[in-house]
Amino acid sequence: MPFTVAQLADLVGGAAEGDTSRIITGANTIETAGETDLAFAANRRALDAAAASRAGCVLVPLSCSPTPAATVIRVSDPRVAFAKALESIYPPKPLSAGVHPSAVIAASAQLGGNCHIGAHVSIGENCRIGNDCQIGPGCVLGDDIVIGNTTTLHARVTIYDRVRIGARAIIHSGCVIGADGFGFTLAGDHYEKFPQVGVVEIGDDVEIGANCCVDRAALGATRIGTGTKLDNLVHVAHNCTIGRHVVVAAQTGFSGSVTVGDYAVIGGQAGIGEKAKIEAKAIVGGKAGVLTSQTVHAGEPVWGIPARPLRGHLKGLAYIQKLPELNATVREIRQRVIELESAKKPPSA
Amino acid sequence: MPFTVAQLADLVGGAAEGDTSRIITGANTIETAGETDLAFAANRRALDAAAASRAGCVLVPLSCSPTPAATVIRVSDPRVAFAKALESIYPPKPLSAGVHPSAVIAASAQLGGNCHIGAHVSIGENCRIGNDCQIGPGCVLGDDIVIGNTTTLHARVTIYDRVRIGARAIIHSGCVIGADGFGFTLAGDHYEKFPQVGVVEIGDDVEIGANCCVDRAALGATRIGTGTKLDNLVHVAHNCTIGRHVVVAAQTGFSGSVTVGDYAVIGGQAGIGEKAKIEAKAIVGGKAGVLTSQTVHAGEPVWGIPARPLRGHLKGLAYIQKLPELNATVREIRQRVIELESAKKPPSA
Amino acid sequence: MPFTVAQLADLVGGAAEGDTSRIITGANTIETAGETDLAFAANRRALDAAAASRAGCVLVPLSCSPTPAATVIRVSDPRVAFAKALESIYPPKPLSAGVHPSAVIAASAQLGGNCHIGAHVSIGENCRIGNDCQIGPGCVLGDDIVIGNTTTLHARVTIYDRVRIGARAIIHSGCVIGADGFGFTLAGDHYEKFPQVGVVEIGDDVEIGANCCVDRAALGATRIGTGTKLDNLVHVAHNCTIGRHVVVAAQTGFSGSVTVGDYAVIGGQAGIGEKAKIEAKAIVGGKAGVLTSQTVHAGEPVWGIPARPLRGHLKGLAYIQKLPELNATVREIRQRVIELESAKKPPSA
Repeated sequence: MPFTVAQLADLVGGAAEGDTSRIITGANTIETAGETDLAFAANRRALDAAAASRAGCVLVPLSCSPTPAATVIRVSDPRVAFAKALESIYPPKPLSAGVHPSAVIAASAQLGGNCHIGAHVSIGENCRIGNDCQIGPGCVLGDDIVIGNTTTLHARVTIYDRVRIGARAIIHSGCVIGADGFGFTLAGDHYEKFPQVGVVEIGDDVEIGANCCVDRAALGATRIGTGTKLDNLVHVAHNCTIGRHVVVAAQTGFSGSVTVGDYAVIGGQAGIGEKAKIEAKAIVGGKAGVLTSQTVHAGEPVWGIPARPLRGHLKGLAYIQKLPELNATVREIRQRVIELESAKKPPSA
Repeated sequence: MPFTVAQLADLVGGAAEGDTSRIITGANTIETAGETDLAFAANRRALDAAAASRAGCVLVPLSCSPTPAATVIRVSDPRVAFAKALESIYPPKPLSAGVHPSAVIAASAQLGGNCHIGAHVSIGENCRIGNDCQIGPGCVLGDDIVIGNTTTLHARVTIYDRVRIGARAIIHSGCVIGADGFGFTLAGDHYEKFPQVGVVEIGDDVEIGANCCVDRAALGATRIGTGTKLDNLVHVAHNCTIGRHVVVAAQTGFSGSVTVGDYAVIGGQAGIGEKAKIEAKAIVGGKAGVLTSQTVHAGEPVWGIPARPLRGHLKGLAYIQKLPELNATVREIRQRVIELESAKKPPSA
Repeated sequence: MPFTVAQLADLVGGAAEGDTSRIITGANTIETAGETDLAFAANRRALDAAAASRAGCVLVPLSCSPTPAATVIRVSDPRVAFAKALESIYPPKPLSAGVHPSAVIAASAQLGGNCHIGAHVSIGENCRIGNDCQIGPGCVLGDDIVIGNTTTLHARVTIYDRVRIGARAIIHSGCVIGADGFGFTLAGDHYEKFPQVGVVEIGDDVEIGANCCVDRAALGATRIGTGTKLDNLVHVAHNCTIGRHVVVAAQTGFSGSVTVGDYAVIGGQAGIGEKAKIEAKAIVGGKAGVLTSQTVHAGEPVWGIPARPLRGHLKGLAYIQKLPELNATVREIRQRVIELESAKKPPSA
């Protein structure tokens, strides 16, 4: 959607300088933006790049000088302003409210006002969907599911029975929420399934990436707190309690009954063992392996397998790098000891 | 579904004590159970918790004393009894037999008696589905697929052509069974696809978690044996032979032509290299990296990357932890050697 | 599809010897092939096995002697010839052109000639699909998507808006192409979503395994080059640029803005940190952890976490294995130093 530079300045609460009537129709990075694109420069490197940029308009810090481009908008936080401008330049596609005729919706399900229900959707008995929700094509909702207002399920999401999802949540395509937890008991010569009768509760403003799996609890609930964001292909096992405003990078897995505190940050491909406890604001590095029942404290990131505080881990790596040298030193000392020993011996008769 | 304590005692073959006419409508952990909930206490810690529990009824061992709660049912194995009670308190939802009118089923496909075929299902030519099967909404079955009796495919499962699945199997949502194995040959400046013309054969009583991928064999069959259980997001490559009653935790990957013996146990996020052999009853730890063609023996779990017996691996970790100390010791010894050497020297003239 | 040995020899450009009128109806490995199966033997081990094989016909190298089986076809490259023969013996199923009546296709979408559109497919506004494409059952395509000729989407693939896919690409079931990149900014007490307004561009002849996720760029494009092959469950984050003819094994993840050069080979379960650069023809080992902004050079594979050249990594592992011995040596030397020191001391008065 096109805007003049002056309009964009209004929109982001900034001050325009230069060709304020220039038309901006898109946005890009400072390196690749063209004459009709908005870009932003928040740090020294980007401000230097801005001088050579072809961007039609650049969002810059209030205080930057000299002005790095012909047309700029000065704002207190260029990155935040850019994100705001993006929402206007690329407005979310308005999906028309209504239920596609191919959707199959149980008579007992309740849909809020202004919902968009896509093609080939299934919604089971007694579901309650809030207002302004979007349920993409091919989604399958079981029975007794509750979804808050303004939540989006992208195409082909599966929600098993009795799951609850808050308001303004975004669940990406391919996610499976509420499948059975992995609970089996060896009974003689075979495994018996431990019934998984709990639920999943997902808070408001949660975003879950594509092809993630969040299992229902064996008993009670698997919980994901308000504002938490999961990247793609994340696995959350039965009975986990993920706190509020937690960030989890792609392909990470949480074993059963893990607890994660608010504002924790978890890298990609990390593995968190059963009943481990990640404290609030703790940081777990990419590929880290947190052991069963281990506690990760806030204050220093953990890294490695098994996970331990980053400084100790790096020190360990450095010592490993120096092992060839250490071995050589030991060999040399041994030789010198042998010489000392032979010097000490009385001359043979 | 509600039961009296006396009825539950009959159901699990135990002896009720206390208020045997109390109504139980649900089940939960000993810590969180309420007055209408069943709970169980199988070990000392749980029995201690039972004293403070609000649970309406607690399953306890035959011999435990003192009685840890007002109303108990004594059984030989509280966990097994609890699992059995759960199946009655939370009975599996009876799905009505029948084919949803939106399902698209080839005329040549044969459906057994009492099957439930959900909305928007596709079933291809010459498929043979057993009796009492449930095929959830959005499942896609190719051609020439054989499925045994009483097998459940949850919503949105894809089965490619010619796959065979046994009886009483459970496949969770998002699984893809029978996609092409990953076989390419560099032919000059590009890769050529090696045709993947084999099949997948899955035994009876197998359960496969959400969003797993089991690839067809290049030639012959990729096999998963009877009673084996896979957690979510597991990858099984072409030509693997996974034995019977194997347990595989989430996000583990098996490269091509891996063999896994019966009753092996494999942790989460493990990676098993091509043609590796995991022997029967062997144990592979979480995040372990089994090398190409490596054999993992039963008797001691393996751990680490590359995977090796746990004791050796832990000893290695302990030695790494002690490296700062070892370095200090070496420095100190060297200093003492220097002193010995200088003492040995004749006084300079 | 059945062939005589003579016909197969024509087909692969080889010379038949033995029973050239024998009928071949299938293909299998040299160990498991039966009397109506073709097999191949490209190396010494397989040629030895060929002598004991029940295969109806064996593809062998031009020069091999003695002839290892009764009926052979001599070819310059048995593996390449076998792959070619497989395509004829197991011809791809011809899918009839046409749009299934249950598919929901926007009036503004353009379909090329001879396309097969399966059941329960959704195709959004302004999509342009080339000739001879196959869109499997349950696929969901958003708006403004462009797909080249002869591309196959297997069942249940999701393509978000504005993604472009080249010609002859194969996308396996469960893939999600174009979901939002994982971009959030901590704004006070919560995370705000950074709008993800870029696209995904996938080249010609790309194959993507089941349940992979390729995220759209925040700005600009996430790119996968011509001829590149991804195995199952691979994650490609926003703004990655994967080159041409790259091979990526299963469950590997690329963080944001990673660059991978042409002909690179990346093992399974590898994790590539943000903005890392994998050079052309570089090799990353399975489970390797490439750090943020790390460069991986061609010439020597990298391995380990953090990833470093294989030889150095293996040397480090060997030194770790020898740590018990090193510790023992240091203890022994210290003891000998103590003895030297005590010998040096003047006899106590």
